[in-house]
Amino acid sequence: MAGNTFGALFRLTTFGESHGEVVGAVIDGCPAGIPLVEEDIQRELDRRRPGNHGGARTTAGTSRNEADRCEILSGVFEGKTTGTPVALLIRNTSAHSADYDNLKAVFRPGHADYTYAVKYGFRDHRGGGRSSGRETAARVAGGAVAKALLRHALGGAYSATAFTLRAAGIECRTVDFSVIEKNALRAADMEAAARMEEQLARLRAQGDSAGGIIECRVSGVPAGLGEPVFDKLDAELAKAMLSLGAVKGIEFGSGFESADKTGSSLNDAFRVDPADNRKITLTTNNCGGTLGGISTGSEIIFRLAIKPVPSIFQEQQTVRQQSGNPAAYENTALRITGRHDGCICPRIVPVVEAMSHLTLADMYLRSKTSSVPPAPPLW
Amino acid sequence: MAGNTFGALFRLTTFGESHGEVVGAVIDGCPAGIPLVEEDIQRELDRRRPGNHGGARTTAGTSRNEADRCEILSGVFEGKTTGTPVALLIRNTSAHSADYDNLKAVFRPGHADYTYAVKYGFRDHRGGGRSSGRETAARVAGGAVAKALLRHALGGAYSATAFTLRAAGIECRTVDFSVIEKNALRAADMEAAARMEEQLARLRAQGDSAGGIIECRVSGVPAGLGEPVFDKLDAELAKAMLSLGAVKGIEFGSGFESADKTGSSLNDAFRVDPADNRKITLTTNNCGGTLGGISTGSEIIFRLAIKPVPSIFQEQQTVRQQSGNPAAYENTALRITGRHDGCICPRIVPVVEAMSHLTLADMYLRSKTSSVPPAPPLW
Amino acid sequence: MAGNTFGALFRLTTFGESHGEVVGAVIDGCPAGIPLVEEDIQRELDRRRPGNHGGARTTAGTSRNEADRCEILSGVFEGKTTGTPVALLIRNTSAHSADYDNLKAVFRPGHADYTYAVKYGFRDHRGGGRSSGRETAARVAGGAVAKALLRHALGGAYSATAFTLRAAGIECRTVDFSVIEKNALRAADMEAAARMEEQLARLRAQGDSAGGIIECRVSGVPAGLGEPVFDKLDAELAKAMLSLGAVKGIEFGSGFESADKTGSSLNDAFRVDPADNRKITLTTNNCGGTLGGISTGSEIIFRLAIKPVPSIFQEQQTVRQQSGNPAAYENTALRITGRHDGCICPRIVPVVEAMSHLTLADMYLRSKTSSVPPAPPLW
Amino acid sequence: MAGNTFGALFRLTTFGESHGEVVGAVIDGCPAGIPLVEEDIQRELDRRRPGNHGGARTTAGTSRNEADRCEILSGVFEGKTTGTPVALLIRNTSAHSADYDNLKAVFRPGHADYTYAVKYGFRDHRGGGRSSGRETAARVAGGAVAKALLRHALGGAYSATAFTLRAAGIECRTVDFSVIEKNALRAADMEAAARMEEQLARLRAQGDSAGGIIECRVSGVPAGLGEPVFDKLDAELAKAMLSLGAVKGIEFGSGFESADKTGSSLNDAFRVDPADNRKITLTTNNCGGTLGGISTGSEIIFRLAIKPVPSIFQEQQTVRQQSGNPAAYENTALRITGRHDGCICPRIVPVVEAMSHLTLADMYLRSKTSSVPPAPPLW
Repeated sequence: MAGNTFGALFRLTTFGESHGEVVGAVIDGCPAGIPLVEEDIQRELDRRRPGNHGGARTTAGTSRNEADRCEILSGVFEGKTTGTPVALLIRNTSAHSADYDNLKAVFRPGHADYTYAVKYGFRDHRGGGRSSGRETAARVAGGAVAKALLRHALGGAYSATAFTLRAAGIECRTVDFSVIEKNALRAADMEAAARMEEQLARLRAQGDSAGGIIECRVSGVPAGLGEPVFDKLDAELAKAMLSLGAVKGIEFGSGFESADKTGSSLNDAFRVDPADNRKITLTTNNCGGTLGGISTGSEIIFRLAIKPVPSIFQEQQTVRQQSGNPAAYENTALRITGRHDGCICPRIVPVVEAMSHLTLADMYLRSKTSSVPPAPPLW
Repeated sequence: MAGNTFGALFRLTTFGESHGEVVGAVIDGCPAGIPLVEEDIQRELDRRRPGNHGGARTTAGTSRNEADRCEILSGVFEGKTTGTPVALLIRNTSAHSADYDNLKAVFRPGHADYTYAVKYGFRDHRGGGRSSGRETAARVAGGAVAKALLRHALGGAYSATAFTLRAAGIECRTVDFSVIEKNALRAADMEAAARMEEQLARLRAQGDSAGGIIECRVSGVPAGLGEPVFDKLDAELAKAMLSLGAVKGIEFGSGFESADKTGSSLNDAFRVDPADNRKITLTTNNCGGTLGGISTGSEIIFRLAIKPVPSIFQEQQTVRQQSGNPAAYENTALRITGRHDGCICPRIVPVVEAMSHLTLADMYLRSKTSSVPPAPPLW
Repeated sequence: MAGNTFGALFRLTTFGESHGEVVGAVIDGCPAGIPLVEEDIQRELDRRRPGNHGGARTTAGTSRNEADRCEILSGVFEGKTTGTPVALLIRNTSAHSADYDNLKAVFRPGHADYTYAVKYGFRDHRGGGRSSGRETAARVAGGAVAKALLRHALGGAYSATAFTLRAAGIECRTVDFSVIEKNALRAADMEAAARMEEQLARLRAQGDSAGGIIECRVSGVPAGLGEPVFDKLDAELAKAMLSLGAVKGIEFGSGFESADKTGSSLNDAFRVDPADNRKITLTTNNCGGTLGGISTGSEIIFRLAIKPVPSIFQEQQTVRQQSGNPAAYENTALRITGRHDGCICPRIVPVVEAMSHLTLADMYLRSKTSSVPPAPPLW
Repeated sequence: MAGNTFGALFRLTTFGESHGEVVGAVIDGCPAGIPLVEEDIQRELDRRRPGNHGGARTTAGTSRNEADRCEILSGVFEGKTTGTPVALLIRNTSAHSADYDNLKAVFRPGHADYTYAVKYGFRDHRGGGRSSGRETAARVAGGAVAKALLRHALGGAYSATAFTLRAAGIECRTVDFSVIEKNALRAADMEAAARMEEQLARLRAQGDSAGGIIECRVSGVPAGLGEPVFDKLDAELAKAMLSLGAVKGIEFGSGFESADKTGSSLNDAFRVDPADNRKITLTTNNCGGTLGGISTGSEIIFRLAIKPVPSIFQEQQTVRQQSGNPAAYENTALRITGRHDGCICPRIVPVVEAMSHLTLADMYLRSKTSSVPPAPPLW
């Protein structure tokens, strides 16, 4: 209950601190027989790595460079999951703890330094400890296992694709999945991406940072996933996404625009599939892929508000513990140095996909017990 | 894992269908010794009742009229909780199942009829069964118990206040808590409320409905509540709120506006409390009351996108099961009759407060094990 | 986490006190489509009722007489479960709270009065509150739902049969299931039952009570149920049974006798089924039906040590809270009056069966996600 | 829900296979501020190591020799827990997978080979995979963290001491804790230990093995730990102990002897502590330290039936998968070779202590929310 496990049946537990020896993950509840090799995980981890988007070092990236090699420690035998826990380990090879010595007694604005100190009585000040974005490497690794399960169970039509819809005030005017990995922002529009980069370069020159909006689309999900009442599919996705430190909001389908719509314009009509009268389609997808918290079979669509990176290089007002009396504070000014992203959106994109996989894998397994077949007659 | 329980330590399980005999709740994990009488629960339930807001029957309200009397069946002895499960029962006294007979084979657009049928193989068609807003009566009852715990533990400064910020395209220009219960929309601005009512009357005359935005502010919460990583306070609140069928989005603090902000303008500065140098305040609250998913001690603020009520009185395109062959469908047109809200916002307001109480009660109990005092020395 | 829920996927939560208004149960996680009517539950509840065994009022029985009528409040529609929570309510019609007024400040030896008072700071002194055997009525009701699921899923071969193997020092010499419901002790041997009754009559005349041993055999369980490591099938059954207040021990298969055996005499050999070489049988069942915590397909067999009923009519040494100073105690003598069982074994028998059903229903559902079928190819 | 996590609030998840690269553990929910160094864990692991009891290589031991060095990977900073997950890793340095090649298609009697194969569809045949006793190294490591918490929270009076009470048919006649670590059987009686060794040598010469009984006594536990109804302290201990593959039964206090006792002889009387009238003692401890599943403050005492080691060197009857048709079986005879214990009792002793620590740590944390202090008045 200490908050380091995600999922009810497909359970990911992460461990490790930003500047400790490792970050790692244990996945419990992955069914037996799922094909899985380290390369499936490494591919996703590589996408999360600093600077490893758009093929070039860019204004959006940070300069921390971790090899992020993932080891599978258990739960896989002869290329398949065995049904036992899959433990994954990523060594921290580039952790410069000394960078953070000057932050030992100071609370960085916009970070969790203060709230961790209040909660636990003391904290690991090296790079934010558990609250660092570094922890999301373990999520990405776990998400790759979830994706392997979903590909096995739902087929190749399953996918979750996230991209930067907006950054530094500039929005994609088209959505072209094929260009996402071709620009440093992971935007879905090359022209917008170029303008985002320009704007980010300007902010970075001022020692400042930018926020943005990420959109995610999950397709190939059959109708019927999600639990009613409290564990609705959208509720679980909302929890998954808000568990990312930079996310300040989420909306599904028409989202906040729904507020100004009428029922007659927002309801999605049902129609019989002309090719097969045992199938139903929705003519629109204002609901974003769920009704009553259960998937409709249409694409699941949501957007995330991403706050600007709090680590900026301008001087900020904050407090520090008094050196002779750590229970008392004094005002101070802080100028952060080191390596930080100018806009976190492109690095969060693979994490959003990973959290989508994890949520859907859990919901998929949970759906297995909604109804059960009767025993065959004895004769 | 079937989704009918909310919370990890303060656990609410709800049961009952819209048109069954009862809706009810079991709260497990409420500590012993909390003062609780039926009136504490009844007061909140009365606020959720149809038409029972603003003192008058209005265009926003539905015409279903349930007495909604709550019985405490267990867990309370001589006016205090005993530490054992608190079971609450509300009889459905006004359930007209026959109203729904014509919906037996039809899927209402915007409702969970279709997805429930896919998930479970069949469904209780009477009024939506578990997916009905009726289920939220049990949440409101449970939320009252959570509120009693928080008032006991955190003191009288604790409160959660929700209100309609926007409805049918009209937004409050001021926020005055004292008027919320004085208008039918539960808006925080009487003038805006009047215009919302006018606009709703216009829509209702067309057989249509409207959406809106609800804002909620939680105050009196000390710094340090929330679990790191997956069970962040804002993640749990997001799940709680998205578990309400009408909610299509949530944002905290500056929310989606954060996307266009820079770090230098969005970071909330820390300052030492001038009156007590062992205390810290935040000079702004763009973060909405949490950092790293843990409460800062400032007000927790979030806004919810509420979709228009899907039950409209215009004809809609949908499908029905073929009478001779229930596995096959045919297109049909549907015109819903009966009693329905024109805008659900005012009725959701007390439910949003209840879900806030439930989330915070759970987080409060979870915080009890973050650190533990050392045993006293033996001599 | 307050201990009132049993099971991970098939979840039973009970509520209600011995001398409150009701005892009740909510079952969450029961799949949709299981045939269930009140009579399925009532039949089991009737077996648990005081004096309702062996057809006649006997020395083993207590004189409390509850009608124990069970109502299904939710989760069942047109004779089948809907997949939503099944709530069950049993009104307490014969609760004489006044019987317990003299026990308000006194701790009964062998009861939970003292430990509840320490744990919660105060207690519901009426008849033991939640620690009373009365709570098991809710378990029996929930167990009937679990049994319905297992009969549906595993077929009519599934059954769990418990009986009194030993009571008041007398042991069954034969095991004949057909006589269990024909004698007041629910023994599996009529001759032994008669001698148990004689011995109990003797003890009762002295105001004393007796213990015994219950055996339970579960058959029709396929190989493969149970989770490895911590949630072994036998571990979960042990927890289930030790959660009954009167149970002081459990053993599986050869149990404590295994301690003196050798590997060569205790290992159960595997043999190919002569009729079908894709099936395996065990030639003996010393392991009691599980290997590595997973069912073998053989009968699951365990035995329970049942302590004598602590409510005896002899004078006992105990303490009471001082009337002027409830934080301080004084020694006192106590003579309990009222209605109590002379030997609890026959009344526990249906509860043991219920807990077996609940454990196996949970394990059955959990087994649904051990492996999952691959998606069919797309063409 | 796949069974690899123990505990509700103090949660241990283990991973790793007998003949994989590692076994490991993640502890989530350990409060912040508990002093912990690797040596605390190593000390317990060393006791579990093969042959590392009694100071000498003995007939009870196996010949597998793992260094079992434990690394703390996360969750500890400057010698104290931080409140974040504590990950522990133990490399398998002496895993001879080739020893098991001949077992690829064969099911060893008394082992989980068959049931795992049925459950998962296939299995890691190398040394039993997860079902191996090797997995308990991770439990012992986790138990050391639980012990550190309990020593911090309850003080130095807290301890759990297990010992071999009986082995190969020979029982301790005295119980002297000081000799437990001085003999190879971890018996509490040196003279009995010598005779056990003799008897084991005789069995080993015949290629056979022996079972036994382990007793465990937990002291320094205050009254009030344990949750009512399903999660009784004794129920959780029973689950913990039955989750050990070799354990076939458990009894508390008078245990199975209770069956033949009367209420008047078994009830433990309460008396006021002569030195302090706010304290209560029990004059006897037939209940074994719990009443109604909650600790009484007396010693918690239980005994475990340990089955003989199933890996014997005599020929045994079993089955194997047919080489051309793995879905079909054929009868075969098997003679196991390699390194195996003659009696597992001494090696289980530290594991029993670890599981006791883990159960009590969880129950201790759970007790923190049974009641909560009221907020101080505002003025």
